[in-house]
Amino acid sequence: MEYLEQLGQRAAAAKYELQKLRTEDKDRALRSAADALVRQTERILAANDRDYKTAQSGGMSEALLDRLKLTPERVKAMAEGLMQIAALEDPVGEVMAHFDRPNGLHIDKVRVPMGVIGIIYEARPNVTADAFGLCFKTGNAVILKGGKDAACSNEAITQIVRETLADEKIDADAVQLITDNDRAVTTAFMKLKQYVDLLIPRGGAGLIRAVVENSTIPVIETGTGNCHIYVDEDADLDKAISIIINAKTQRIGVCNACESLLVHEKIAERFLPALGDALREKNVQIRGDGTVQRLIPDAAAATEEDYGTEYLDYIVSMKTVGSVEEAVAHINRYNTKHSDAILTENAAHAELFLQGVDSACVYVNASTRFTDGFEFGFGAEIGISTQKLHARGPMGLKELTTYKYLIRGDGQIRP
Amino acid sequence: MEYLEQLGQRAAAAKYELQKLRTEDKDRALRSAADALVRQTERILAANDRDYKTAQSGGMSEALLDRLKLTPERVKAMAEGLMQIAALEDPVGEVMAHFDRPNGLHIDKVRVPMGVIGIIYEARPNVTADAFGLCFKTGNAVILKGGKDAACSNEAITQIVRETLADEKIDADAVQLITDNDRAVTTAFMKLKQYVDLLIPRGGAGLIRAVVENSTIPVIETGTGNCHIYVDEDADLDKAISIIINAKTQRIGVCNACESLLVHEKIAERFLPALGDALREKNVQIRGDGTVQRLIPDAAAATEEDYGTEYLDYIVSMKTVGSVEEAVAHINRYNTKHSDAILTENAAHAELFLQGVDSACVYVNASTRFTDGFEFGFGAEIGISTQKLHARGPMGLKELTTYKYLIRGDGQIRP
Repeated sequence: MEYLEQLGQRAAAAKYELQKLRTEDKDRALRSAADALVRQTERILAANDRDYKTAQSGGMSEALLDRLKLTPERVKAMAEGLMQIAALEDPVGEVMAHFDRPNGLHIDKVRVPMGVIGIIYEARPNVTADAFGLCFKTGNAVILKGGKDAACSNEAITQIVRETLADEKIDADAVQLITDNDRAVTTAFMKLKQYVDLLIPRGGAGLIRAVVENSTIPVIETGTGNCHIYVDEDADLDKAISIIINAKTQRIGVCNACESLLVHEKIAERFLPALGDALREKNVQIRGDGTVQRLIPDAAAATEEDYGTEYLDYIVSMKTVGSVEEAVAHINRYNTKHSDAILTENAAHAELFLQGVDSACVYVNASTRFTDGFEFGFGAEIGISTQKLHARGPMGLKELTTYKYLIRGDGQIRP
Repeated sequence: MEYLEQLGQRAAAAKYELQKLRTEDKDRALRSAADALVRQTERILAANDRDYKTAQSGGMSEALLDRLKLTPERVKAMAEGLMQIAALEDPVGEVMAHFDRPNGLHIDKVRVPMGVIGIIYEARPNVTADAFGLCFKTGNAVILKGGKDAACSNEAITQIVRETLADEKIDADAVQLITDNDRAVTTAFMKLKQYVDLLIPRGGAGLIRAVVENSTIPVIETGTGNCHIYVDEDADLDKAISIIINAKTQRIGVCNACESLLVHEKIAERFLPALGDALREKNVQIRGDGTVQRLIPDAAAATEEDYGTEYLDYIVSMKTVGSVEEAVAHINRYNTKHSDAILTENAAHAELFLQGVDSACVYVNASTRFTDGFEFGFGAEIGISTQKLHARGPMGLKELTTYKYLIRGDGQIRP
């Protein structure tokens, strides 16, 4: 794949220049790119319109068409995203630790860019600007592979950013877009280990699985969220309804939305009818076990598969359990290690749950919807990691860096 | 692969118990295991003898036979390794950060075990005890897959450790050994993603490549070291010879040994003849470019392949360069991102090199042999990471952990 080889070489050349850029120069370039996106809104919308018409005539669903569609407001939001990134602290260069060894060696552990980051994503053009901004701020060159349905939009956005970088006398190869939409090219990109230090898929479970199975580059898995809420026997039931409705319905299609509810059998009689009413009012369909079906008559029967499904829709699975331990075991079996919550006023039960659940974010008495870089106070994020290596939960700027050891001596040899 | 499924399930069950163990209980079990290994030296040596005889009659090389061979001293060294791990600080449970959010959410970032770690290694029985100790101390269950040439030795060591754990009332499945040495089992193990959180290969470049290409579990690559030393025009040439001889010959077969030398052309006439003499005295063969061959008459010609080779032998490649920049570019092209050094008295050249070389450890005026957990003051290590994700350079106990966010609220919902 000579095409990818060339992209890789250009990214590798750009990364050395990026590592040397001062924070103020990076921030100025980010602000210029934001200005350029807004100034050239017409150019972006025209490109997006071509994508939209093709997708529409190809029969794309309304939900996906909405994700693809750009408007002047959405272009402005992309630009604001870049302005926010410019305002964040630059993690590169931080001396994370310093050791003076008895033999006179001085060791600094210094935060440095990864080098080259690859991002594979679906037909959301806003990811193009966003991923560029986060990688650029952290001194990384980025190679983007967006969904082919957004090809024209992504190309317009990338071109505008590249033109801005060139105007700022910065190597435009800081951001490159793979424009060959052949599937084989994408698969080969996942093996471009010689040039790419880290690969981040952003999208649905299918995309992430394909990347994990094919990539030889280290991957961070992001964003599949089969999130649970367990309502304990000692829960405050008013709070519980408010939290569940928020976690399930405040925004349906996001990874930190709640997909499955566990309810302690001791409170089932008291709680489930009211919960059923509240969910029905929000048009949420319920799939539950026998007890759930008895107490919420319009609930359908849940299958094994339901418990493992991230619906991203107005559907929730529901099960009654006999203890915190049973809830924890169920969650660890079916969750995606994203976000899970216990609702309880019992401190001992809360601690059991916090300790036992193997997820990036474990909550007591709060909505799972808070798993988000801004809500945690970290600022813009590249995604929510659901793996344990390197980064877990909301991934901000620091998570796009690595470190190296700089060791200064005066002739030391090992005895 | 029902066999692996069972191992995975047992490890998954053990991990929850391990996460709850107190540091003092883990340390006591480690010390008991150390005692048991020494007490049962005869049992280990008898098993090792079976491996040794099979390997010998199969024609294994002397160097590999030596790595396989156990002696009472080597068993004692394994036990001492476990005692050292018991004496290290337990990283699990550390509150790495705490955030109080304006909405009243309290967020703790807490260090937790990975869960289940897989280690694939070659015929070095000492890795069995070592990998168990490091994983156990950090609250992880471990599944070991050792080289089949050490099968009996590994089984004896694992059994002794498992018996000790059972005596200590700890789940013996904290350590399991894959005893089916079919290659297909090893390949399937690399895809046991449902149960294994992290896979660490320990061995040569071939093993590591196979794991990277086949694994769907997140991998940390360790220990391939094509380490360079660049002798700058402003180097102290006496120091340079001492450092080069140390880095190349103090221990030939290790990953932080020097494999390639770059020499600034301005000092080639003065320096290369003396360097040639010093290397010849240590029986190191030289493969160099034209200038090197002219100034060290017994040097062979270096090929492109030589510059990319980790010899682990009494051979060194050598090249003359015209500048620090050329040295940095050559190193970034051929190195394995492990350890590289500049020898110079010129501070500006040193900084260019420290900034420019993309390696875990970059040295000024010291031997690359210092890349080692003990030498850095970290204590025992599971390996030297040559990738950038999660851990870089010497990996100690902390690098075998991850974190999770514990979020405590009192009914917060997202507006």
